[in-house]
Amino acid sequence: MSGLFFFLYFVSFLFSDLTEASICSSNAIPIVRNISELPQGNYGRGGLSHVTVAGSLLHGFKEVEVWLQTFAPGSGTSIHRHSCEEVFIVLKGSGTLYLASSSHEQYPGKPQEYHIFSNSTFHIPMNDAHQIQNTNESEDLQVLVVISRPPVKVFIYKDWFMPHTAAKLKFPYYWDEECFESPKDEL
Amino acid sequence: MSGLFFFLYFVSFLFSDLTEASICSSNAIPIVRNISELPQGNYGRGGLSHVTVAGSLLHGFKEVEVWLQTFAPGSGTSIHRHSCEEVFIVLKGSGTLYLASSSHEQYPGKPQEYHIFSNSTFHIPMNDAHQIQNTNESEDLQVLVVISRPPVKVFIYKDWFMPHTAAKLKFPYYWDEECFESPKDEL
Repeated sequence: MSGLFFFLYFVSFLFSDLTEASICSSNAIPIVRNISELPQGNYGRGGLSHVTVAGSLLHGFKEVEVWLQTFAPGSGTSIHRHSCEEVFIVLKGSGTLYLASSSHEQYPGKPQEYHIFSNSTFHIPMNDAHQIQNTNESEDLQVLVVISRPPVKVFIYKDWFMPHTAAKLKFPYYWDEECFESPKDEL
Repeated sequence: MSGLFFFLYFVSFLFSDLTEASICSSNAIPIVRNISELPQGNYGRGGLSHVTVAGSLLHGFKEVEVWLQTFAPGSGTSIHRHSCEEVFIVLKGSGTLYLASSSHEQYPGKPQEYHIFSNSTFHIPMNDAHQIQNTNESEDLQVLVVISRPPVKVFIYKDWFMPHTAAKLKFPYYWDEECFESPKDEL
């Protein structure tokens, strides 16, 4: 009887492992996936819908990551920077990119403003502090985001005059938290 | 008078340099660009429209590259492989992905077929031979393509049973040719 118990315990353990693997898999994701059926979340940020279309921690990509993000009118990102290439494609709506393109002083400083619009592309020079806002009052802003060097390490600023050294590292980033495994101590 | 001639010659030389720099620039591309206004071409391939949205040789990106490609009904890619990550997002239409997912023998072999459709994403495992075809008779297939490790080095197969060692390297690839500079001999 205890043999059966241990057998069942072992089987349930196997299946719990399989379940976890299917959420944060580094292998065997389906080749074709319906983006409408992928998990989406706002990660506590009002007005945001984020979908990791192709992810490092979620899907096992090593060199690129692709996100689909929708910002409701008035919403946007924090002021932040990261040490990777980042390319945006605007699928719907319009908004404003704020970019401190000479972030090489002690703080980002007053950013330049760029109008972004449906069927435009824009990129963020590596490590430049930036912020994206849906400044269109009536329409969602939807973008595809491509980054290199996943998973992303984000430094967040309270304002444009916060020193770079005071910017706060957020890692793993919100949508990577679920699948992030802390490095194991090797003692 | 000859002084003026040389001055004008020098000025025209300067401008020809500037013109070339603006097509194949590795720096100073505008932050925001209208995708509709970017150069597009078919590179001698019927039914194709290719736009390099964010390019390595064209725009100076080092780690990612983004293409917008449209395939007319009946058109598609060659059978090919490359040693990079590749993620597709289908913006419009539908078609078929042929993927030789066990490309680890001497030749790709009979591929698996996957239906691809608007708002789907798919990826190509590194070095797997693949082909994309617009198998929809009435609608264009439009995809965004993200690759790592640009510029891409493509190995092309005549058919699925051609040995890997016989696949033909095409480098620089068609849309990279204009901006490719051969390594200078250093003697």
